[in-house]
Amino acid sequence: MAQQEVTNGGSEKKTGGGNDIMEVIEVKFTALKPQLVVEAPKANEAILFYKAAFGAEELGRTLHPKRKADQELPLILSAQLSLAGSTILVSDLADPSETPAKSEGTGLVFYLETDDVASAVNKAVGAGAVVVSEIAEGEGAGCGLSRVGKVKDPYGVVWAICSPSAKVAEVEA
Amino acid sequence: MAQQEVTNGGSEKKTGGGNDIMEVIEVKFTALKPQLVVEAPKANEAILFYKAAFGAEELGRTLHPKRKADQELPLILSAQLSLAGSTILVSDLADPSETPAKSEGTGLVFYLETDDVASAVNKAVGAGAVVVSEIAEGEGAGCGLSRVGKVKDPYGVVWAICSPSAKVAEVEA
Repeated sequence: MAQQEVTNGGSEKKTGGGNDIMEVIEVKFTALKPQLVVEAPKANEAILFYKAAFGAEELGRTLHPKRKADQELPLILSAQLSLAGSTILVSDLADPSETPAKSEGTGLVFYLETDDVASAVNKAVGAGAVVVSEIAEGEGAGCGLSRVGKVKDPYGVVWAICSPSAKVAEVEA
Repeated sequence: MAQQEVTNGGSEKKTGGGNDIMEVIEVKFTALKPQLVVEAPKANEAILFYKAAFGAEELGRTLHPKRKADQELPLILSAQLSLAGSTILVSDLADPSETPAKSEGTGLVFYLETDDVASAVNKAVGAGAVVVSEIAEGEGAGCGLSRVGKVKDPYGVVWAICSPSAKVAEVEA
């Protein structure tokens, strides 16, 4: 029950025992931005790829304040890219010991919705991605009943390019 | 130069040589949804965690059509969660050979913006996350000059909880 109330959030305050008040922490989140951390110094190359492959637009970038003697260019602390109405961040991994999200069994796929799956896959492959699943119609994990093709980018990230399921329904109707 | 034009997208058609026309594939993406693939059958548990930790709301879920004889519950093909104005997908990894995004050097961090970093970190830890970086002010990769604390969830995903940089600027002004 306590978990239910944490889950629901909302503006209600409990009037019950003092212990339960602790459980009701209300936090409002205003943005979610996935950050892709790539092996340094490949972030700049990755940003060019995301522009060429998916038409991402760069909103800005912050450079790493420390540059090592053997680096020709400063590393990228964070570049903000606008893609499909979302913001993603691309960063150089300055310290290899800090590599995030390597636990066994958990992985990431980016689902990208478009009305033109074939052109999107072709464009991504033209920019350097590799097809990992040919385009097929079916029950895609992220898109419902839909056309979906999967590509892996040069940085190891899998992109599932799919049509919104409503569009398939319209075509079939 | 050809890459520049692919990058820019836009509605202009090239009037130059025929070869270059091939490069101008215009694709419009309507949504980007990160999918977290967790070791089966932990997706349901992960969904409960994201609700408790971050107040995520479940928009719907699709179950895997095939259930193996030794499974008590059907696996989750995809659950759609609303979080901070974005949609994320959580799925069971039915086939361990299909684990995505394991390449060396690339990792993922989710940046979550909130005005109340301390409460957000406390709530996430209360739900089962572990602190990986204590809250500090500084140049966070995803948030500019900001307060940021990092937690790792039970599924190996790192969440950087940070305040929008404008808020810090207001406080300092």
